[in-house]
Amino acid sequence: MSADAEFDYREIDDVIHGRVRLSIMAYLSGADIADFNELKAKIGGTDGNLSVHLRKLEEAGYVGVTKQFRGRRPQTTCMLTKKGRDAWIAYIARMEALLHSKAAE
Amino acid sequence: MSADAEFDYREIDDVIHGRVRLSIMAYLSGADIADFNELKAKIGGTDGNLSVHLRKLEEAGYVGVTKQFRGRRPQTTCMLTKKGRDAWIAYIARMEALLHSKAAE
Repeated sequence: MSADAEFDYREIDDVIHGRVRLSIMAYLSGADIADFNELKAKIGGTDGNLSVHLRKLEEAGYVGVTKQFRGRRPQTTCMLTKKGRDAWIAYIARMEALLHSKAAE
Repeated sequence: MSADAEFDYREIDDVIHGRVRLSIMAYLSGADIADFNELKAKIGGTDGNLSVHLRKLEEAGYVGVTKQFRGRRPQTTCMLTKKGRDAWIAYIARMEALLHSKAAE
């Protein structure tokens, strides 16, 4: 990122930035692995909303999603991929720069 | 905010969070006052895009916008309001908590 791009909104990773996806990424970055119901309880919203955003993160290669049966019940588990963790770290650095920038100094 | 709401996406101020508006708020938080062309050069995008987002911030009471003539040329200047500065500080605190959360610990 050049110095001129410090405030350029296009430097913010749009895949992560949406509020639901950001909350998923933040939770998974600490939880290592989480099942769908756990995620929904933490992040809020509906099944449909969470599914849509999980799929977008999966398509970007940021989150791995596994569906399996636990006894007779289907279970969906998610975790950050290596690519997702790298993107998360880059996103944090970008946001820190923006949140603590001093334009006038 | 309750501890249970740590990852709840609805706790993130949607007025500020959009990438263009976030970049405007970050720039104005350090610049005190900025004119439209200066903002556009820093944040990127088109006149129309920037205008739409400035208006949304103005409607929320976060940014004050003044239009005046400087000689024969119209000039639009913007600055954070007290309400906007308070919202910005609250937003930073919220994002810091999310970016550095440790769900599994």
